[in-house]
Amino acid sequence: MSKSISIFDTTLRDGTQGEGISLSADDKLKIAKKLDDLGVHYIEGGIPGSNSKDIEFFKRVQQLGLSAKITAFGSTRRKDSQADQDANLKRIIESGAQAATLVGKSWDFHVHTALQTTLEENLAMIYDSIAYLKQQGLEVIFDAEHFFDGYKNNPEYAVSVLKKAQEAGADWLVMCDTNGGTLPHEISSIVTTLHTDIPQANLGIHTHNDCELAVANTLSAVQAGARQVQGTINGYGERCGNANLCSIIPSLQLKLGYECIGEERLKQLTNTARYISEIANVHMPINQPYVGNAAFAHKGGIHVSAILRDSRTYEHIVPEWVGNKQRVLVSDLSGQSNIVSKAHDMGLDFDQTNEQSRKVIDKIKDLEHQGYTFEAADASLELLLREAGGEMKELFTFESFKMLVEKTAGRPVVSEAFVKLNIAGNNVYTAAEGNGPVNALDNALRKALVQYFPAIKEMHLSDYKVRVLDEKDATAAKVRVLIESRDINNSWNTVGVSGNVIEASWEALVDSMRYALLGQILQKERDVEEPSADQRGLINH
Amino acid sequence: MSKSISIFDTTLRDGTQGEGISLSADDKLKIAKKLDDLGVHYIEGGIPGSNSKDIEFFKRVQQLGLSAKITAFGSTRRKDSQADQDANLKRIIESGAQAATLVGKSWDFHVHTALQTTLEENLAMIYDSIAYLKQQGLEVIFDAEHFFDGYKNNPEYAVSVLKKAQEAGADWLVMCDTNGGTLPHEISSIVTTLHTDIPQANLGIHTHNDCELAVANTLSAVQAGARQVQGTINGYGERCGNANLCSIIPSLQLKLGYECIGEERLKQLTNTARYISEIANVHMPINQPYVGNAAFAHKGGIHVSAILRDSRTYEHIVPEWVGNKQRVLVSDLSGQSNIVSKAHDMGLDFDQTNEQSRKVIDKIKDLEHQGYTFEAADASLELLLREAGGEMKELFTFESFKMLVEKTAGRPVVSEAFVKLNIAGNNVYTAAEGNGPVNALDNALRKALVQYFPAIKEMHLSDYKVRVLDEKDATAAKVRVLIESRDINNSWNTVGVSGNVIEASWEALVDSMRYALLGQILQKERDVEEPSADQRGLINH
Repeated sequence: MSKSISIFDTTLRDGTQGEGISLSADDKLKIAKKLDDLGVHYIEGGIPGSNSKDIEFFKRVQQLGLSAKITAFGSTRRKDSQADQDANLKRIIESGAQAATLVGKSWDFHVHTALQTTLEENLAMIYDSIAYLKQQGLEVIFDAEHFFDGYKNNPEYAVSVLKKAQEAGADWLVMCDTNGGTLPHEISSIVTTLHTDIPQANLGIHTHNDCELAVANTLSAVQAGARQVQGTINGYGERCGNANLCSIIPSLQLKLGYECIGEERLKQLTNTARYISEIANVHMPINQPYVGNAAFAHKGGIHVSAILRDSRTYEHIVPEWVGNKQRVLVSDLSGQSNIVSKAHDMGLDFDQTNEQSRKVIDKIKDLEHQGYTFEAADASLELLLREAGGEMKELFTFESFKMLVEKTAGRPVVSEAFVKLNIAGNNVYTAAEGNGPVNALDNALRKALVQYFPAIKEMHLSDYKVRVLDEKDATAAKVRVLIESRDINNSWNTVGVSGNVIEASWEALVDSMRYALLGQILQKERDVEEPSADQRGLINH
Repeated sequence: MSKSISIFDTTLRDGTQGEGISLSADDKLKIAKKLDDLGVHYIEGGIPGSNSKDIEFFKRVQQLGLSAKITAFGSTRRKDSQADQDANLKRIIESGAQAATLVGKSWDFHVHTALQTTLEENLAMIYDSIAYLKQQGLEVIFDAEHFFDGYKNNPEYAVSVLKKAQEAGADWLVMCDTNGGTLPHEISSIVTTLHTDIPQANLGIHTHNDCELAVANTLSAVQAGARQVQGTINGYGERCGNANLCSIIPSLQLKLGYECIGEERLKQLTNTARYISEIANVHMPINQPYVGNAAFAHKGGIHVSAILRDSRTYEHIVPEWVGNKQRVLVSDLSGQSNIVSKAHDMGLDFDQTNEQSRKVIDKIKDLEHQGYTFEAADASLELLLREAGGEMKELFTFESFKMLVEKTAGRPVVSEAFVKLNIAGNNVYTAAEGNGPVNALDNALRKALVQYFPAIKEMHLSDYKVRVLDEKDATAAKVRVLIESRDINNSWNTVGVSGNVIEASWEALVDSMRYALLGQILQKERDVEEPSADQRGLINH
């Protein structure tokens, strides 16, 4: 039997059923791009026609030229009607997706209770809908809802549902443990039986985590012969979530010898998981298997000394295989190599054996301890490294800012900011309004800088994220702000941390503009053969 | 074979190896009491002598008169020494614990690499230590570290370790998957083999979650014959955590027919999990299986209408069996049925066929379109529904607020807020500082209200989340703020949306306090038989 597994990601559809998860069309496009880079085979984008975000997604995703197949989700036709008249099936066809995921009932109890129709009509709904979509040239993945509950209650009927789907031309028959209540040994024995009941079927598995067994159930099904795995990044999904692809892919590939996304792309797993948690704005548990920040963190003293002798003593895989890294929590030796490699990328002379470099590493570690994160804030890290290398001359000195928000009943809220800087020996004092406090600060800061650095006009903020770091203290907690900025050619990310959201935003804003100007200046230096003394003076002395 | 499973909790020992988990002696005693109420059979309290907290715990826990056996953890004697001279073994005896958990090596690689001794000396260390503790009258649980890795590398040696422990009188032989890298089918086949290799052994299982398989591995071992389960509440523990007893106990009891803690005590599971997460000061993931706040939460419209017909359609167990409850979320993916069922929960007369109810539904949909989300803001939704039902009289009228943040170089940032309200015909004007703008607003609003509604003192904000809704416009984008508040008995969630983070926070803050006071007033109405006209006037007119 083939050892190739088809990875079907439904983060953008079933994942968004998770409490607190809401993705805009832009978010969905960013995630689709990232999933494609990871090498998943199918990306289920949403339910066409259920809302305007999904319609926009299906339209725009076609322009991205992804390798993964895009699939649109929907139910089989309504009871007692015709497939070619069904509004939902029409929307799937109109979406332009190459594949359709059609969900149908396979539990007799559900046919009676939820659909309120006959077992025969349900089979006809499945057959007609699949046959119609196949006629229209789509690949069809059939999701048999509640397959295992159905099988336990009425095995003949559950199997007849799969057979009917196969007969209608479905490319994949996916067994769903919709309520998440099935145990691995049950999955294993049911899937094994199907080889004789439905030979030649391309079986898939879709599980939920209600018993904390979604990953185990998926592995069981694969070991019993399923060749498609449906799941989500970080296990997002309704109730307790869907099967977590970030745990399934490495176990299938590294431990069971299946081919999923290949060795090289597996190294992007940690980065993908963290990126998507940022876009979804969901806290990633530090103890998440394989990709969590603590997945290879060692605290116990004995463990640590053994780990330093041979990492196999307390690590089940090499963390780098999934793009993660070892962290030693007591004597912190980790992360240096990342900083060193980053500095080398920038062309900086940086060596962890020299004292000055060690000082920078200590400073970065201290900032991380305070809540800064440089994984998503490359520009702030570059500024720190250039500062440490003596390469930066500050473009301005900060004196003060004031920020006022005022709201009177029946009138719109007003935000004003006042910024005082010293630029090249001159006091610059500006005031500006904005439609929020950060916008007002951005406007006032820009107004001050543009007089001296006209290049600032070419950049703008393109993304702004706020994360409360220690939620236990509620409004007295620390806040981390991440800002993404763009000019015509580039985008860059900066970070600020404070107990005060305004101060954290200010920090990230200032870093963004410092970096923008640094880029402008470095660019000019490369463009002209003989830079003027003035230009050079801004970054070297 | 017996269907009784011995539950061994190591939250207080292995659980505290988790990153960010630190428990005082008082915390440990509170947790031990709660675990005893839940009915676990063993409570591993810590490592006597490793620190003063653990010494204090073992001394004071004896006075609690718990039913569970208290067990003290330690390693086998040091190499090339005598058990009765070993400082760690002495401390276990002095701790007064009834049972000892002794960890020893069973992976030959570890004996060579970590212990740096011979295979024979390791066997002697195990034998001597167990025999010595048994002589002293203790029950001994032997934890065979890395048993499965050891078995895979050198099955004869791994088995000889268990045999040696049995020979020395160990009461339990516990197979540990210390690195968490073993898969369920491996556990199953190895444990099955042991029945012939070591007949009559009382086998136990101790797993870690590095592959998201700790629960599955535990179930596999039990199905293969293990009769003791070691784990922690909420799966706390080093790296990716230990096996989660909150998922294992209900699956063993409700799905596999084993006897663990009994039907009645199982109903305390959710409460125990949440209590311990509060004491440990660790955020509990809402999607945690069985006990999480979202474990039985339903968002999709079709799911909800089926759930209302028969909850078995989308629930694998009855939530009350584990002390949890069903929740119906309101969201853009859902239909009206969610709102109707929510209103019914509140005891409101609400019917989607009547015009007034349809108006509220339209209003809620419009607010959702603007970026509000009510799935995580029950209290704001309740306020809207009560308002629509004519049940709310406003407690105060908003006149204005001002919020000032000021930062001068070299000095800490200052946040001040000024709030003007009209309460019962009186103008109330307050000012307050805070360590951030929202904290300052909270303080000023509270200062105004407390003079008229002293009950406001009893509530506080416990969680604060910010989400930027449309990141394309960056600092000019819309912001959604979610606030969780608590008093001694309850917690509730409110939402605010605005282009201005301060205004959004203000909205959520005001809703939180309105809801708190509503609760106080409804409570009073229920408590007194004849409510005074004044009290009634606040919510009815």
